[in-house]
Amino acid sequence: MDSDDLDRYATDAVLADGLTVHIRPIRSADNDRMLAMWGRLSPETIRMRFFAPRTMDAEQMRFFSDVDYRDRFALVAETGGRIVGVSRFDRLDGQPSSAEFAVLVEDAEHGRGIGTALLRALVEPAGDLGITGFVGDVLRENSRMIRMLRDAGLQPAFSDYGSVVHTTFRSTPTETFLATGDEQDRLAAVAALRSVFSPGSIAVVGASRDPATIGGLVFDNLLRGRFQGPVYPVNPAAAHVQSVAAYASVADCPTVPEMVVVCVPAPFVRDVVHDAARLGTKAAVIISAGFNEAGPDGSRRERELMEVVRSHGIRVVGPNCMGVLNADEAVRMNGTFSPVFGPPGRVAFSSQSGALGLAILAAAQRLGLGLSSFASVGNKADLSGNDLLQYWESDPGTDVILLYLESFGNPRKFGRIARRVGRRKPIVAVKSGRSESGTRAASSHTGALAAGDVAVEALFRQAGVIRTTTLEELFSVATVLANQPVPGGNRVGILTNGGGPGILAADACESNGLEVPELAPGTVERLGRLLPVEAAIRNPVDMIASASAANYGRAMRFLADDPGIDALLVIFVPPVVTRAEDVAHEMAAARTEIDVPVLSVFMSERGVPAELTGARIPSFRFPEGAAQALGHVARYGRWRSRPLGNVVE
Amino acid sequence: MDSDDLDRYATDAVLADGLTVHIRPIRSADNDRMLAMWGRLSPETIRMRFFAPRTMDAEQMRFFSDVDYRDRFALVAETGGRIVGVSRFDRLDGQPSSAEFAVLVEDAEHGRGIGTALLRALVEPAGDLGITGFVGDVLRENSRMIRMLRDAGLQPAFSDYGSVVHTTFRSTPTETFLATGDEQDRLAAVAALRSVFSPGSIAVVGASRDPATIGGLVFDNLLRGRFQGPVYPVNPAAAHVQSVAAYASVADCPTVPEMVVVCVPAPFVRDVVHDAARLGTKAAVIISAGFNEAGPDGSRRERELMEVVRSHGIRVVGPNCMGVLNADEAVRMNGTFSPVFGPPGRVAFSSQSGALGLAILAAAQRLGLGLSSFASVGNKADLSGNDLLQYWESDPGTDVILLYLESFGNPRKFGRIARRVGRRKPIVAVKSGRSESGTRAASSHTGALAAGDVAVEALFRQAGVIRTTTLEELFSVATVLANQPVPGGNRVGILTNGGGPGILAADACESNGLEVPELAPGTVERLGRLLPVEAAIRNPVDMIASASAANYGRAMRFLADDPGIDALLVIFVPPVVTRAEDVAHEMAAARTEIDVPVLSVFMSERGVPAELTGARIPSFRFPEGAAQALGHVARYGRWRSRPLGNVVE
Repeated sequence: MDSDDLDRYATDAVLADGLTVHIRPIRSADNDRMLAMWGRLSPETIRMRFFAPRTMDAEQMRFFSDVDYRDRFALVAETGGRIVGVSRFDRLDGQPSSAEFAVLVEDAEHGRGIGTALLRALVEPAGDLGITGFVGDVLRENSRMIRMLRDAGLQPAFSDYGSVVHTTFRSTPTETFLATGDEQDRLAAVAALRSVFSPGSIAVVGASRDPATIGGLVFDNLLRGRFQGPVYPVNPAAAHVQSVAAYASVADCPTVPEMVVVCVPAPFVRDVVHDAARLGTKAAVIISAGFNEAGPDGSRRERELMEVVRSHGIRVVGPNCMGVLNADEAVRMNGTFSPVFGPPGRVAFSSQSGALGLAILAAAQRLGLGLSSFASVGNKADLSGNDLLQYWESDPGTDVILLYLESFGNPRKFGRIARRVGRRKPIVAVKSGRSESGTRAASSHTGALAAGDVAVEALFRQAGVIRTTTLEELFSVATVLANQPVPGGNRVGILTNGGGPGILAADACESNGLEVPELAPGTVERLGRLLPVEAAIRNPVDMIASASAANYGRAMRFLADDPGIDALLVIFVPPVVTRAEDVAHEMAAARTEIDVPVLSVFMSERGVPAELTGARIPSFRFPEGAAQALGHVARYGRWRSRPLGNVVE
Repeated sequence: MDSDDLDRYATDAVLADGLTVHIRPIRSADNDRMLAMWGRLSPETIRMRFFAPRTMDAEQMRFFSDVDYRDRFALVAETGGRIVGVSRFDRLDGQPSSAEFAVLVEDAEHGRGIGTALLRALVEPAGDLGITGFVGDVLRENSRMIRMLRDAGLQPAFSDYGSVVHTTFRSTPTETFLATGDEQDRLAAVAALRSVFSPGSIAVVGASRDPATIGGLVFDNLLRGRFQGPVYPVNPAAAHVQSVAAYASVADCPTVPEMVVVCVPAPFVRDVVHDAARLGTKAAVIISAGFNEAGPDGSRRERELMEVVRSHGIRVVGPNCMGVLNADEAVRMNGTFSPVFGPPGRVAFSSQSGALGLAILAAAQRLGLGLSSFASVGNKADLSGNDLLQYWESDPGTDVILLYLESFGNPRKFGRIARRVGRRKPIVAVKSGRSESGTRAASSHTGALAAGDVAVEALFRQAGVIRTTTLEELFSVATVLANQPVPGGNRVGILTNGGGPGILAADACESNGLEVPELAPGTVERLGRLLPVEAAIRNPVDMIASASAANYGRAMRFLADDPGIDALLVIFVPPVVTRAEDVAHEMAAARTEIDVPVLSVFMSERGVPAELTGARIPSFRFPEGAAQALGHVARYGRWRSRPLGNVVE
């Protein structure tokens, strides 16, 4: 194998604590650092590996450091410039499709999952070298190793439960192996993003006294948003920033900040992140631009930044992003440069565009859509939309997940994750870069390659992702999902006090994949007794302009009781007599007795009565918008009700 | 011919003054009324008809009243129960495919076009009886008749210009004949609707003291809207209505109202209209419901109403409508029961649904879309959307025509008219009743039969009508058309200060039939000198977040100068430094030097700066809405630039 081939096996493994280690094939030049690691091993750890005490000198270590990458192969785990673990396999003499494996991690790093990661990382090169099975002996008392073998998802078989256990397992990636990887990945994402979304303390590096700079704005927003923890302004040129004493560097802060927001110019970012990582900071949100999106110089800068990041295990959002936000009252973190910090809610939002992020926060506030948390992912150098999906999957404050995407880092992984997450929490996405010119612009924007739109469509469909073509639609769907149950089917009952809007609604329902069925005879009869003879008691039910607020309440209940109706679309046009507020009041009351989702359309110049918002009944200005949103939600409901099964990727 | 066959030739001819006469085959029972008409003829008129003085008694009149409907055929024109004109033809003895024609109209009705209408009405029965040519002798001095022959579109040939002229013409409907009919129809519609939209005086019949009734509201709205003429409340049970002395009947009003708004219950409507028509009222807007839309009883009531209407020539909007509105400062008529009376503008709107009419007025005000006039046409018993189209075609206050349609009275005529009107003024329409349930509801709504959607689509496409699927889209397109020129092509230049919105815009443009082409080298060079290296100077042009207001102004001019760009879509996301107001100011300034249309997107939580509205630059919240509207307008521009030609109907 030449060195290019070997580079393929280099990877950054994300650990259960959210941090990363760098795993790569061993090199002869590693001998000294291997010896250094040996020096940090406890006698107990050595005994577990070699079943007896032993010593090691540079010459002896050569046996382990020099491998042929054919019959003998080894990987090392690096962090902070140190080698902290090693895994290896040696092909068996008389049995060339099997190899003996071994794993060793230094004591100080035990319990983080480095051994598991090292073991799992052997699978790919083993397969490439024609090895299909691993064998090994483990001390019976080495419960850590036995647990590791199980955790790695390799389904080991054990025999001879004496003081030494013989273990064998297939070295090919089984479904369990993949699922185990996904689960580790998920736990890692959750851990990493916990430091991003709920840090105990934050340093704003580049916090400026000038509120018209990014650094000034972010600091100001964290303060004014009342972040529930200390926020340290870091600025070597200022004694204080907005009445808060400033620190010259992260190292000068009173405690090590769990998270840093980096707003300094691009050339200084790497050193800032390096300093913070060395101190033990868990996460960095890098707002600074000038990386992959900015030509060859920027790309080089991003590579250099990521070397520092990988070698120290710190996790990064960005660079080239607009920050992160957590509206949870216990956190209250507006770590963005947008002043908008609306009321908290249960909708999470990830945006690949910073500019759109600003617009999204503004629109969410305008539309009264409460957010749980928000992240602008920028260049996605480290943490990606996939990681956010997994974080929000287990975030008890989030019910609905919204994504603005321009590109996929790993579409197959996105599909696997989204399919799983979507079972419990609907995912709604706008994927741009559909058109030729859009794709052209997208590639130059965050430096990522845009995927073909047909493939994206298929990916979303399989994964149950609700794809909307516009941001407006995205917000509409989100509002329905955040406030109403998902309908059990696609049959809509339309209730109106004006014929025209009812017809528009029926048209729009059918062109959005919904049915507007005839009502059950019992429902027709009940409506007939309730309404005047001029009313149309078929579906759409036109109660005509004389309809009272009470009529609305009762007719809603009748329709909801009809077993052939899965959702209600209730339209009100202000006529002469009936007041919108009264209708809203009755609708809100009826809502509490109704199981099917209810959407409303208030075609009034005075907007939507406050009662409706209180009752969590989404309201639209025109019937078409309501039908479109309901169509999406019903389609999602159908997807979710199908058995999961295995999907060919 | 039996009497059913004869009924086919009965018709209501609309005259140039907008009023109608009823034309039908003569009956023997007409003899007395024929004599009565004879009694009203001047000697001059008799001489023109018979080339000499003559008398007439009942016995002689029989010759004219009794015809065999085979070789001899006659039609009479009736109004207000009187016969006011007659036309006839007698087959020539030796030449059975030719007939001699004659037309006679009583003096008091000269000049209204009744003779032309009577002559034209002979064409159909003549054709049915195998007659292909008409001949006749006319006194040389009878210039009225000669003009009539020409006006009728029959392309007469004249010979022997002595004191008697011999004329011959084909009695088959040629293209000129049809076009002439259209033109007469147009003039009639314009005249009729002038009395509807600009009456000198109005009576509100059923004006109530209770402002929560329709009659109370309409009266109140006319008063509060400051209608520029007298408004008479008619209410036999009240001495005054809202401080205005009331009248017991239309006849009691100080002057004959040019228009009446009728709000009384359905059973009383016919008598009210009858009274007003007899007095000389030109038009009635009938808001009352309970006609065709209300089952067999209602249909009978509408037939009876229309008999009165036809026999007196009064013109009717409705019944079952929500009224009419003219925002022109010289008229200021809010003859609806909606309190919304926004600022005047240049967009006219016709709605077949009253409830939607209310919503439309509310939405127009909310969106700042100024209306010139508005009509809710209801059951379209008399005046229809086609008539409105023709009125607005010649209305100097209207530039854009919006239609909400549920059905067509006469689709072919709509197509002919729309194709002509659309050349000068764009027509934007929402046609509902597309779906099965929508169609079901539409038929029961205004009692009209809905047309198949495929046919509608083809009709609109041929006629250049911009069809939108939603009301929201309708308003967007209208706002663009009312404020910006129609683009000469479909090539869009996108200017943004945020990458993501630019990509969304490019995607949306392409999916709405627009192109986002590469820019000319000269444009790229100019932009390159203007913008920092980080900016993307391809199309979309991403000026990045540091873009100043001045950058916007200059870049807009550069793009507009590019010969490959037909329209600009300018996007602003509020970044840190630049203020939306400043950008709006620069955009407004640039706008004055730019020939291509400009649409803007302000993705700001504070909405659209006032400067933009002043500069008449339409603004959208999201790029997709702007692209959709521009797509419609560009498609319209392409249609309009094609030669008109003849379209097979």
